[in-house]
Amino acid sequence: MDFDSRSPVVVLAGGTGGAKLARGMADVAGDDLVVIANTGDDVEMYGAYVAPDPDLVTFWLADRIDERGWGLAGDTFHVMDGLRELGVDIWFNLGDRDLAYGVRRAELLAGGTRLTDAIAELVAALGVAATVLPMADEPVRTSVLSEDRWIPFQEFMVRERAAPPIADVRYDGAADASVTPEAASALANARAIIVGPSNPVISIGPILAVPGMAEALRDAPAPVVGVSPIVGGQVVKGPTEPFLQWAGVSLDASGIASFYGDLLDGLVADEPLDALAIPTLRADTLLGDPDARRRVATEVLAFAEGLR
Amino acid sequence: MDFDSRSPVVVLAGGTGGAKLARGMADVAGDDLVVIANTGDDVEMYGAYVAPDPDLVTFWLADRIDERGWGLAGDTFHVMDGLRELGVDIWFNLGDRDLAYGVRRAELLAGGTRLTDAIAELVAALGVAATVLPMADEPVRTSVLSEDRWIPFQEFMVRERAAPPIADVRYDGAADASVTPEAASALANARAIIVGPSNPVISIGPILAVPGMAEALRDAPAPVVGVSPIVGGQVVKGPTEPFLQWAGVSLDASGIASFYGDLLDGLVADEPLDALAIPTLRADTLLGDPDARRRVATEVLAFAEGLR
Repeated sequence: MDFDSRSPVVVLAGGTGGAKLARGMADVAGDDLVVIANTGDDVEMYGAYVAPDPDLVTFWLADRIDERGWGLAGDTFHVMDGLRELGVDIWFNLGDRDLAYGVRRAELLAGGTRLTDAIAELVAALGVAATVLPMADEPVRTSVLSEDRWIPFQEFMVRERAAPPIADVRYDGAADASVTPEAASALANARAIIVGPSNPVISIGPILAVPGMAEALRDAPAPVVGVSPIVGGQVVKGPTEPFLQWAGVSLDASGIASFYGDLLDGLVADEPLDALAIPTLRADTLLGDPDARRRVATEVLAFAEGLR
Repeated sequence: MDFDSRSPVVVLAGGTGGAKLARGMADVAGDDLVVIANTGDDVEMYGAYVAPDPDLVTFWLADRIDERGWGLAGDTFHVMDGLRELGVDIWFNLGDRDLAYGVRRAELLAGGTRLTDAIAELVAALGVAATVLPMADEPVRTSVLSEDRWIPFQEFMVRERAAPPIADVRYDGAADASVTPEAASALANARAIIVGPSNPVISIGPILAVPGMAEALRDAPAPVVGVSPIVGGQVVKGPTEPFLQWAGVSLDASGIASFYGDLLDGLVADEPLDALAIPTLRADTLLGDPDARRRVATEVLAFAEGLR
């Protein structure tokens, strides 16, 4: 395989960690960057189709992510205020512009547009040069079994603050989903495939649950490199620990490596990695500011390209 | 029939004229006021169920109507701005709080709530003591035939600015609609029934097209009094003239009287009324300010009660 320097750099991303790495990678790979984003958290609400992970990635890439860590910088919340005035219990907060994007997406989907194209419209409208792809066009919905109740993921995460014990995780609809032509093409032609530092179970797990996705990663000529979401023995953001515990893997690089198994050709993590059987790169993986994001992306991409 | 002073005063209302008279009547009848509002203009849009006429009446009754003549005073338009950013052609403008109300209503209706109850929730939330009833719980949709195309009413009115020639008018769904128990009870127990100064064809027409509604008016023990939307030979607001022309009646009190026929026991209008066969009251019916609205409502109600 001849790796063209214009070949895609693919990043698999869920929440904030993957989105921040994608933002750094945009500095390095420009419009060659293709993000395949988790849609297992998508939810239809307020008449809108809300895609939290694809939008998080898009807002990060557009440099329009709000300081609070989600939603658009400077967005207002007048529709939510109006709903509260009517006594509605608003546990899922959504800004007015964020809602507009979701309303538009719902209209497009109702008219038969594929999710891939509906997401591309927003990405283009925000002036993002990179590509953001949903992991599938078909609906896949993550839910968490807790005390005999299957809780839809946003409800588990936002309403319940990820507090309930985790007995099981499922990705409804995954069996009927398929890898899109766009995702298949990006993976087949990639010069590097990066599994972002997102929660392996609930951010990357749904992506890998799409039939054909794991095979596409294994069959891709490009090296597949994971970036551990664990920094200094801790998870930077989100409930990765209880999900890894449920998955039966340890909260360290070897746990991440064993979770992904033979999908990975290499792993980047900020801890001693001598015991791992695959090629590794120890690096400071904190993605706290633009310089750090660019540096981590550069190091990860160089490491991946060195594995060809 | 014993007319109790606590019996309902019913106002049939469509757009601004009916809403303004209803506002004046609220000063006179307080929480005895029951408005039966046209829902032929309702539209599902932006994931919301928008009910322009019931909401117009409600905003007027709540003293929250905006100066522009529709929507809530001080409302913002951030969702519409967001949609425009995505290149959506926004021909139907809706404020953020207005959208919230419509989103809530869509959720209630999707959950099986009757339109009557969904509208009552908003009326109560805005602190309105009067009752606002939709003309029916079932969907009825007004559309206008123009040059061989049936144009949904909001599109005709807002997008086309009521400019296309009118070849026909229909009220889709009317045949399957029915008078609600609330409307039937209000009409049967009313001390007066006022047909508001709204467009007879497109505001009052859909109400009268609900099977059983015209009979309920005829059978009601209370006098039924129309208020002409024509003041000084002109229509105060809206495209009443071309619709009356299409209906084949003249743009004056006798045209209004002939349109409603035997439904009316009396008519109030601001022109010489000697030639009419029914009892009439000549009065200044301009509803320009709160004092005028209260005065007109007082005179109309006194005239109606004098017809018992």
